[in-house]
Amino acid sequence: MSNKQPTPINIADKLDKFSEHWSPKIIAQINDHQFKLVKFKGEFVWHKHDDTDEVFIVINGSMRIEFRDSDTVTITAGEMIVVPKGVEHRPVADDECHTMLLERSGTINTGDIGGDMTAPPDDWI
Amino acid sequence: MSNKQPTPINIADKLDKFSEHWSPKIIAQINDHQFKLVKFKGEFVWHKHDDTDEVFIVINGSMRIEFRDSDTVTITAGEMIVVPKGVEHRPVADDECHTMLLERSGTINTGDIGGDMTAPPDDWI
Repeated sequence: MSNKQPTPINIADKLDKFSEHWSPKIIAQINDHQFKLVKFKGEFVWHKHDDTDEVFIVINGSMRIEFRDSDTVTITAGEMIVVPKGVEHRPVADDECHTMLLERSGTINTGDIGGDMTAPPDDWI
Repeated sequence: MSNKQPTPINIADKLDKFSEHWSPKIIAQINDHQFKLVKFKGEFVWHKHDDTDEVFIVINGSMRIEFRDSDTVTITAGEMIVVPKGVEHRPVADDECHTMLLERSGTINTGDIGGDMTAPPDDWI
């Protein structure tokens, strides 16, 4: 048993702390998974994560996730979606969209593709 | 790669589908973890989970989590908290509070204690 005091994490307060797009910020660790906040705007790159499912929970706004092998899906605030491991996808947001992700710790935002939009996988806020 | 179509999960719609208190309903699976919705009202039992951290994300309302070895914490809509594995805790809600949990698949709501408030760990909605 730990004496460490658990403390609340306010999602809106954490969102206020950064403005960059496509740069996930870790806000909580649970077992070997992490919750991350991301601000999406524009088109991301096509990619997949071979070793983790990924959950997108929309906090503010609306976005689309395009899938290489199935239909594009729109998710809006109060909705979430699970992208299974190995499934090629591309997030797109016409207007800024604030999303909370859950994925395995150490996951790289650009997955198997890399490139200019790759962000550090260990950026806590 | 899967051809299965990922589909949005609307949290409010899922909450409308049940009314029982203290009875977690699974809404999503990610790797070996599950998101569950729970409606809290009143006092739960003191318990701990020896093999999983647990995240509480408050969707509607407000609740307290009492900790055996540290201060009571109040969390309200838009806030979340991580209860580490092995930490004895007790959720309390004066008024009905709607919460989304993340924990390892198969976790029993009453942890190491059991008793009348134990709910099935595999109840999808």
